[in-house]
Amino acid sequence: MTLRSAAPPHNAGFDLKQWMQVQLHDVERALEEWVVSKPDVATGCRAPQDLINAMRYAVLDGGKRLRPLLVLAGYDAAQNQAGGQDAFVQSRVAALRAACAVELIHAYSLVHDDMPCMDNDVLRRGKATVHVKFGEAGALLAGDALQALAFELLTPDDGSVAPLTQAGLCGLLARAAGSSGMAGGQAIDLASVGRVLDEQHLREMHQQKTGALLRCSVLMGAHCASASASALHALEIYGGAIGLAFQVVDDILDVTSDSATLGKTAGKDADNDKPTYVSLMGLQGSQQYAKRLLDQALSALDQSGLNNTAALAALADMVVNRTH
Amino acid sequence: MTLRSAAPPHNAGFDLKQWMQVQLHDVERALEEWVVSKPDVATGCRAPQDLINAMRYAVLDGGKRLRPLLVLAGYDAAQNQAGGQDAFVQSRVAALRAACAVELIHAYSLVHDDMPCMDNDVLRRGKATVHVKFGEAGALLAGDALQALAFELLTPDDGSVAPLTQAGLCGLLARAAGSSGMAGGQAIDLASVGRVLDEQHLREMHQQKTGALLRCSVLMGAHCASASASALHALEIYGGAIGLAFQVVDDILDVTSDSATLGKTAGKDADNDKPTYVSLMGLQGSQQYAKRLLDQALSALDQSGLNNTAALAALADMVVNRTH
Repeated sequence: MTLRSAAPPHNAGFDLKQWMQVQLHDVERALEEWVVSKPDVATGCRAPQDLINAMRYAVLDGGKRLRPLLVLAGYDAAQNQAGGQDAFVQSRVAALRAACAVELIHAYSLVHDDMPCMDNDVLRRGKATVHVKFGEAGALLAGDALQALAFELLTPDDGSVAPLTQAGLCGLLARAAGSSGMAGGQAIDLASVGRVLDEQHLREMHQQKTGALLRCSVLMGAHCASASASALHALEIYGGAIGLAFQVVDDILDVTSDSATLGKTAGKDADNDKPTYVSLMGLQGSQQYAKRLLDQALSALDQSGLNNTAALAALADMVVNRTH
Repeated sequence: MTLRSAAPPHNAGFDLKQWMQVQLHDVERALEEWVVSKPDVATGCRAPQDLINAMRYAVLDGGKRLRPLLVLAGYDAAQNQAGGQDAFVQSRVAALRAACAVELIHAYSLVHDDMPCMDNDVLRRGKATVHVKFGEAGALLAGDALQALAFELLTPDDGSVAPLTQAGLCGLLARAAGSSGMAGGQAIDLASVGRVLDEQHLREMHQQKTGALLRCSVLMGAHCASASASALHALEIYGGAIGLAFQVVDDILDVTSDSATLGKTAGKDADNDKPTYVSLMGLQGSQQYAKRLLDQALSALDQSGLNNTAALAALADMVVNRTH
């Protein structure tokens, strides 16, 4: 019997479903409250309702909220109450803001990605895409405004989040969303249609396109709880592994699932002649690779020195074993 | 003789041309240095060169840089060297980052605004627009990545800008760019084509569409220099007035100038049946209104309690008396 198998599983006694229920309740309520038309403090100007409607349509009532869950699980893992109850309340508020901010960035990327000049998709989360419902200009502006709102959520001026935390969160999110993160990955993706990518280039594309924001989610949560440098390092490895695993599983589901289950158009990548893990490694090879990435993620948690990693471990398992 | 006319003019002995030359040199060099493909610290991933090329095309070698100049003039006005030389160097670095960040937001808004689903313009600053040169998807992503890069510039992780300053700058910029600022104004503008707006609604649209970012520029500069609350209040009034004046003059130039002088398509607003100050107040009425706004801006500077407002005063004058 090895040491590893003798150790208790990461999530012994942990009820993911219940944990998720609590977190998602907070996230949905916060998004509902924060994606609204409020008068600007200085000018009194309000966001036009049409724009807010498109933003809310893009964000509310849909989506797995994986990124917010990773933020809050990263927060739980790194959180200790050494600062006392006040510090706990303040850092948890910061984590909830971070969770929503990451989701807004994710939502904006989907809105723009679905537009006719990009993937030209009409179905998302089982609903008409934003440009189908609000027009292309409406979708373009809603996406732009969602990105700005993400940074607005991270910088409340009511003293509820410490400036040091605000600055760190904005920096992490900006880097993950930008040209060497998500937007860069989208650009590589566009340029790669019809081309053969080797595993290294496929991995680099996904590290940017999907991985950057997933990794950033975990780190933002940990940042709110003032995690140590060594813990952050372990969480980066965890985040990188599940970021990649997420995409591998996405590619697997694109060929093994149907549109109704996925809530989006299945078989699309193959139709668009996009390189995928399945086209590169085959179905079985991709499944094995996803399992290896899960092991990597769990092993990073083992080495993190953090005690409360049950939610992160359970989420990693969920990412790899999901069916949609 | 009134006190006002007896007082020395705001810019007595001030050489705007020379001041601008120094500031623009720094801004152009900084943009050249900061809008590049650098490997991400964590993943080693680089921004794809195509994307960076489109971003650089949108930002470099063009534009009046009015917003960066306002940031740096706001900084000059509020700056005092009470903190000693080190604090001065640090705050000036912050102001230069803020100047470039605002310009990136402005540049991204032009890229998206020119796209076929919005204004469908092919000429900007005398050059082909970004989507004409890089395709629609390329323009969409370049704009998205420019917005993220703005927040990245504001949050360096090298200790060169204090976290308190970073947080304040991100908050100001996010609010000015978002749904109750620039993006909101664009949405109102789109919805107003072919409709008659009264003066109040036209003003509100422009306060958001153009005014928010111009006002924000002045405040971001002042924030870097830790301006007092009363000084910030006066600068808000200044920024609001010249923000509006800028748009009034834009509307005037749209009917009195030609495409070659403007570097963009003239007569476009009338062609698109958009409400303008000229259609509302007539040409002469608009010119008088612009002058009144200039007086408002200068009078706010008088009351700001700040000594070094020569650059702000000269820029206000330039905004109102420009020919393109």
